[in-house]
Amino acid sequence: MERVNGGGTQVKALSEHVYDYIWTRIQRGEWREHEKIPSIRLLASELNVHRLTVFKAYQRLKEDKKVYVKDKSGYYVHPGGLLPFDDLDSPIVSSYVQKSHLSEIHRVPATYQFSYALIDPNLLPNRYFSEYVKEIFDLYPKVLSTYSTVQGDEELRHVLARHFAHQHHFHVGADDILITSGSQQAIDLLARLLIQPMDAVLIERPTYSAAIDIFRQQGAKLLPVDIHPNGYDLEQVESYMIQHKPRLFYLNPTFHNPTGYTIPAKQRKQLVELAERHRCFLLEDDTFHDIYFDREPPLPLFSYSTEGYVVYIRSFSKYVAPGLRIAAVCLRPALMKHLFTLKALSDNGSPLLNQKIFLHYFSSARLQQHLEKLRIALNVRKSIMEEELSLTDWTWSSPAGGLNLWVKLPPSVPMDELLAKSIEKSISFVPGSICDPLKEKKAWMRLSYSYINEKQLREGVRQLIQLSRELNHAHTHF
Amino acid sequence: MERVNGGGTQVKALSEHVYDYIWTRIQRGEWREHEKIPSIRLLASELNVHRLTVFKAYQRLKEDKKVYVKDKSGYYVHPGGLLPFDDLDSPIVSSYVQKSHLSEIHRVPATYQFSYALIDPNLLPNRYFSEYVKEIFDLYPKVLSTYSTVQGDEELRHVLARHFAHQHHFHVGADDILITSGSQQAIDLLARLLIQPMDAVLIERPTYSAAIDIFRQQGAKLLPVDIHPNGYDLEQVESYMIQHKPRLFYLNPTFHNPTGYTIPAKQRKQLVELAERHRCFLLEDDTFHDIYFDREPPLPLFSYSTEGYVVYIRSFSKYVAPGLRIAAVCLRPALMKHLFTLKALSDNGSPLLNQKIFLHYFSSARLQQHLEKLRIALNVRKSIMEEELSLTDWTWSSPAGGLNLWVKLPPSVPMDELLAKSIEKSISFVPGSICDPLKEKKAWMRLSYSYINEKQLREGVRQLIQLSRELNHAHTHF
Repeated sequence: MERVNGGGTQVKALSEHVYDYIWTRIQRGEWREHEKIPSIRLLASELNVHRLTVFKAYQRLKEDKKVYVKDKSGYYVHPGGLLPFDDLDSPIVSSYVQKSHLSEIHRVPATYQFSYALIDPNLLPNRYFSEYVKEIFDLYPKVLSTYSTVQGDEELRHVLARHFAHQHHFHVGADDILITSGSQQAIDLLARLLIQPMDAVLIERPTYSAAIDIFRQQGAKLLPVDIHPNGYDLEQVESYMIQHKPRLFYLNPTFHNPTGYTIPAKQRKQLVELAERHRCFLLEDDTFHDIYFDREPPLPLFSYSTEGYVVYIRSFSKYVAPGLRIAAVCLRPALMKHLFTLKALSDNGSPLLNQKIFLHYFSSARLQQHLEKLRIALNVRKSIMEEELSLTDWTWSSPAGGLNLWVKLPPSVPMDELLAKSIEKSISFVPGSICDPLKEKKAWMRLSYSYINEKQLREGVRQLIQLSRELNHAHTHF
Repeated sequence: MERVNGGGTQVKALSEHVYDYIWTRIQRGEWREHEKIPSIRLLASELNVHRLTVFKAYQRLKEDKKVYVKDKSGYYVHPGGLLPFDDLDSPIVSSYVQKSHLSEIHRVPATYQFSYALIDPNLLPNRYFSEYVKEIFDLYPKVLSTYSTVQGDEELRHVLARHFAHQHHFHVGADDILITSGSQQAIDLLARLLIQPMDAVLIERPTYSAAIDIFRQQGAKLLPVDIHPNGYDLEQVESYMIQHKPRLFYLNPTFHNPTGYTIPAKQRKQLVELAERHRCFLLEDDTFHDIYFDREPPLPLFSYSTEGYVVYIRSFSKYVAPGLRIAAVCLRPALMKHLFTLKALSDNGSPLLNQKIFLHYFSSARLQQHLEKLRIALNVRKSIMEEELSLTDWTWSSPAGGLNLWVKLPPSVPMDELLAKSIEKSISFVPGSICDPLKEKKAWMRLSYSYINEKQLREGVRQLIQLSRELNHAHTHF
């Protein structure tokens, strides 16, 4: 059980907790300067800890000049500890609130937008939707006056259950499906459901940046599992499972974000067996399943599941109408009732209108036609990006699907500077470090080829390469 | 700092935490029967606690027959501890996951639906919405291909900022507003933002049942503040603030749910002063502001705020198109950046289509006409309910707005039995106990008069009264 770098929570001695408890409250201003804090006896009884523990904490607070002792009558707040309201950072908010690294990058507007792993709105079936919406108001005139059930529209859940049986050969009932507002909400709810502080969580390296933030926020200790073009090192995975008893493994095995790698079928089966043997949940995030270029990817891990340790998160709206925010979670009944409760407390159910609009498009023949066209269009964009990048010494593994290239630059290019310069030129990309639970991978970047059109894509990549050359040059001549 | 009943978290001794850490993991099956658990030395180093603490925990585990000692070589898992997967309850899910009491009642279908504090879909402007939606697709043809910004549609936030300045005389910028998927999500995000386990939280008694569940889920210690027809006992509030340093006071001061009471303007001002003096946030949930019968209620507490301790949650879609799930949170910039992060990690922003539909209706002249008609219709329904109830010895305080009557029954009527019998007869209401953080208030019920039409309402109330008489009678003759 050695300590692992990049993990989240370190467990503190109890007196340190007491120290933090008092110090946080002083910073928040709950006791004022020169006000008496609770006596050792009182706080020990309130917190149900030994008086000696509180004594130790108070001694350290005294040493650190957070409190002082007066006339043997007790401990008083030392002046200067109170934070001004507008500067309050961690003490004012719950301890695990994380930065959302990805959303910060997305706040910067860019002409050459390579940081959005989203599909160009011009490739989406916009004009059909206004027709569908009209039909929906005819069919369900009170759709906006009604809440969906918390679990999601029943008709939609039935259609999805049939779709999974047909496409993936796994059989779930409509009751085993919960509709969420996008896969982001699904990950967040599942993290809240399954993770307690101190729990170990396996996570791919690199991975989806927001997932790192979500699991950290729950206080998880993250254990990175490298993903390679041919999959994971399963011996490493098993040894982690034996040593650290991880609660879950969050993974994105199909056209993985950011690398584009796909775990082969054989490893999928082995992984499910490992997870069942070691009672580790597999959170399978299957966002890009339908975005393949040549042939369908292997069946989801969920299809191999027999004991219920796989939880399947499937996002659909991303390549149909991302604005609808529709994803589905499949999991076994014992967990569903708890997930249901969390969803009820979080938002009382996703909006019904959005579910009905999605349902109607999803059930129509147009979906398949749209997907076929979309795959061709994305493949063309990927080829353009690869064509331009082939003129450099940058390296990547060409993906068979998905929206991203995961590109390694030579060490001579300083990534942080390149990002700063790029943003000045209205070019945006995701630096590898934020996709890495260890915050390394500094030589890498994620370039999404899905969001801007062919012409801009070519121009943007050329400019990006040019910028990197200038930086490289500048550094060489220093 | 005496311990308060009905509070959530009790702080445990550290050895109890270690005990739970091991026992939870045995129940989850992370170590099998007869498998060796980590040595005292190893676990003490892993958890960063004293070996004696681990020793104490292991001794108790031994006494409780969770583990046994073998050949002095260490501690081994005692057979029988592993829970069957499908029975796993608390050990499998995060410790604070709560029941959602209200959503359980709402799952039961009922003809005479008095448990929904929702507006009858027939009173909502359904037919206009299909027109608006068409206009929106003409205006924003790619509305479904686009994400909203995480903070919410900018145009909508500007319109709301102007609305607040005009209606409530408080001035916030569009940047001080965050759009959430209903006020439920707003409460959940703010609880996650502000509450750490052990934090004291003031909460009205009675209150919105789901809010109790949400704060409990965050590990808060709840301190109930009785709400009376004329407001709170401010001396009690201040003494709680002094003694318990609560993190926040969650309150619903206008046409309060479930009582319908409205806090007078004078108390609002005093309450804000108290909160600022004692650095306690006021989470003002203002869901029913526009649902008044005779005259506008006093200004929100937020209008009196000078130092930023009031956080304003305003729900609109409830009386326009509840299916849209639109609410707004106003709070100062120092907190906004953190709330923004939580919203980004939770769902990446509410759907744009829903925000645009709401915006167009909200900006139209129809909204005022709709509200005027709605107030009359709801007042009529309230009168019918009160007319029927006046034939009983039940008591209530007639509300000046909102959707509910908070009714006290004579002690001779057993509430649990009445609810069970009612559900059999397809009548549904909210028992007072689930609105009470202390789970008392057993003589009370919340009857919503907003969801079913006049005829059904009269019939349903008559049947409910009849049932209570039968029960009363049956008990008297025992």
